[in-house]
Amino acid sequence: MENVKVIFWGLGAMGSGMAKDILLNKQGISIVGAIGQNPAKIGKDLGEVLGLERNLGVIVSDKPEQVLKDTEADIVLHSTQSFTKDVFPEISLIVKSGKNVITIAEEMSAPQVETPDLADKLDKLAQENKVTILGTGVNPGFVLDTLILTMSGACQVVNKIWAARINDLSPFGPTVMKTQGVGTTVAEFEAGVKSGAIVGHIGFRQSIYLIAKSLGWELDEVVETREPLVTSVYRETPHVKVQPGMVAGCRHIARGYKNGQEIITLEHPQQIHPELEGVKTGDYVVIEGTPTIKFSDEQEIPGGIGTMAAAVNMIPQVINAPAGLLTMPELPVISALAGDIRKKIKR
Amino acid sequence: MENVKVIFWGLGAMGSGMAKDILLNKQGISIVGAIGQNPAKIGKDLGEVLGLERNLGVIVSDKPEQVLKDTEADIVLHSTQSFTKDVFPEISLIVKSGKNVITIAEEMSAPQVETPDLADKLDKLAQENKVTILGTGVNPGFVLDTLILTMSGACQVVNKIWAARINDLSPFGPTVMKTQGVGTTVAEFEAGVKSGAIVGHIGFRQSIYLIAKSLGWELDEVVETREPLVTSVYRETPHVKVQPGMVAGCRHIARGYKNGQEIITLEHPQQIHPELEGVKTGDYVVIEGTPTIKFSDEQEIPGGIGTMAAAVNMIPQVINAPAGLLTMPELPVISALAGDIRKKIKR
Repeated sequence: MENVKVIFWGLGAMGSGMAKDILLNKQGISIVGAIGQNPAKIGKDLGEVLGLERNLGVIVSDKPEQVLKDTEADIVLHSTQSFTKDVFPEISLIVKSGKNVITIAEEMSAPQVETPDLADKLDKLAQENKVTILGTGVNPGFVLDTLILTMSGACQVVNKIWAARINDLSPFGPTVMKTQGVGTTVAEFEAGVKSGAIVGHIGFRQSIYLIAKSLGWELDEVVETREPLVTSVYRETPHVKVQPGMVAGCRHIARGYKNGQEIITLEHPQQIHPELEGVKTGDYVVIEGTPTIKFSDEQEIPGGIGTMAAAVNMIPQVINAPAGLLTMPELPVISALAGDIRKKIKR
Repeated sequence: MENVKVIFWGLGAMGSGMAKDILLNKQGISIVGAIGQNPAKIGKDLGEVLGLERNLGVIVSDKPEQVLKDTEADIVLHSTQSFTKDVFPEISLIVKSGKNVITIAEEMSAPQVETPDLADKLDKLAQENKVTILGTGVNPGFVLDTLILTMSGACQVVNKIWAARINDLSPFGPTVMKTQGVGTTVAEFEAGVKSGAIVGHIGFRQSIYLIAKSLGWELDEVVETREPLVTSVYRETPHVKVQPGMVAGCRHIARGYKNGQEIITLEHPQQIHPELEGVKTGDYVVIEGTPTIKFSDEQEIPGGIGTMAAAVNMIPQVINAPAGLLTMPELPVISALAGDIRKKIKR
């Protein structure tokens, strides 16, 4: 059997990282095309762009139509933007070229939530072109939805789900500091939330939708809150200094209600140096029911690597899937790919 | 849409518990037949047999052929015995009647391991009759395979998997004490392991097969060891008294090797009152790789409830699946069923 053929659309940190993972760690899969937008990368060999010692014979192009038309491939790994309305034209183009697509656009993990009309269009388009579309990533797509759902598989009854993903923003750059409100005063934070400059986490509504839909819960509403994490101690990173009384991060919480009861609570407090006030990072899941199930890890699954891994690991499931726009819980169990990918492909 | 129709074959603790779960907790599903073997139950209404206040209009029968022939149903929940060779005739009968089947027979979680010929026959039979066969349960089927695989979904590289399921046998009866060697001397324990009277856990080879197959690892061999858990303190339950120096349980370990390296280690030490020597029960997973992922729960998922839940929760996935003999990782993500099951069925 020939190698699985993949085209990359998007060569930022995530796209480049997925390409390297495929080249260094995966067997039975070849990169056959690369679409970028950074002028510094266009026209260069992908191997050079990725900082490898060798050329791959794949030239980075800024002409998506041409690459998709001229290149035979099984699947496109797409990583450009976060919102469905922004990636819709790109994903449509991929689908019309007859290729499956995995995107890490956060909203695409369940585009039905914010843009049901675009979700319908993508589903129809995928069926017409006999390909599959999946949005995934570490979160949404894995930690606060697929993993929770899997854990609930041992429950006869589920009454309530609480989960938290507590991480440390210290390694991140100035953009993340701004979108999480790190270094602001409380008043600036509240103004930032109001204006939309401070966004917190993108994906809560998608995760809650996936959980509720899979369990069979019909929710009344989902309410999100973004609170300033005011520090009582001095915290700093190379990009920001936060005095006591100022904001070290954003405590973003989403709550799903059913018959007026809070039935799903997902928390994602993101801050720099949580350890300075004794906060332990990690992923925590509590499913109250019969039985009650509580899982946690010692350290949160890293966001970047987790997203890249989830997207690459779903390649066989997406190639094997029936045509249409699908979500993670509708596909076979995600798992790492440690052997030849071709053995997992059903042609 | 009509309710999903299920027949029960096997009305022991597991079968009865699954039937009660369906009657008390599930929506959109009806029990339409019941096959038992205990003379005290035959000819009685299933409601009476389950200790409910009401009759269900389903009479427990000891004539499987007749029930399967006369009763229209979507699926049979099967819980009679543990080994594929023993349940093969029963599952064949179900499949020939044109019904899907979920069985909790431990070996059926991956019948390819011990009985590849029977697995082939079942797969062909299922395809001929356009139905799906699945073996599942808490373990094998969930904790030490499906759950580990799901967690590995966030890994780019997996080097080694270690997992342990540490539980407390204190609530169990005399049969379990015997099959785990509780209350024996070390010499008796070793003789019991040799004769096959002390079995430990059934399902390690199946779990390791599912992990290796899904990840793409080809293993050289799987080695199982059963060691006596010798107590240094007095332990007792209503069924057994264990003096210091005697055996309080069985430490059953399975190791999978690849290129001579131990790459999968699954441990399942089962004993009475582990807390008396400071042993904490729980489910523990460590996936060494990029990234390393470590999850644990505060208390192990209870075996009985977990098995009943896993089997019932997979009903929609099995009804929706393509025909054939399938395993848990090949099917969409397991999750609890909290709403109307019919909404999950694709007709």
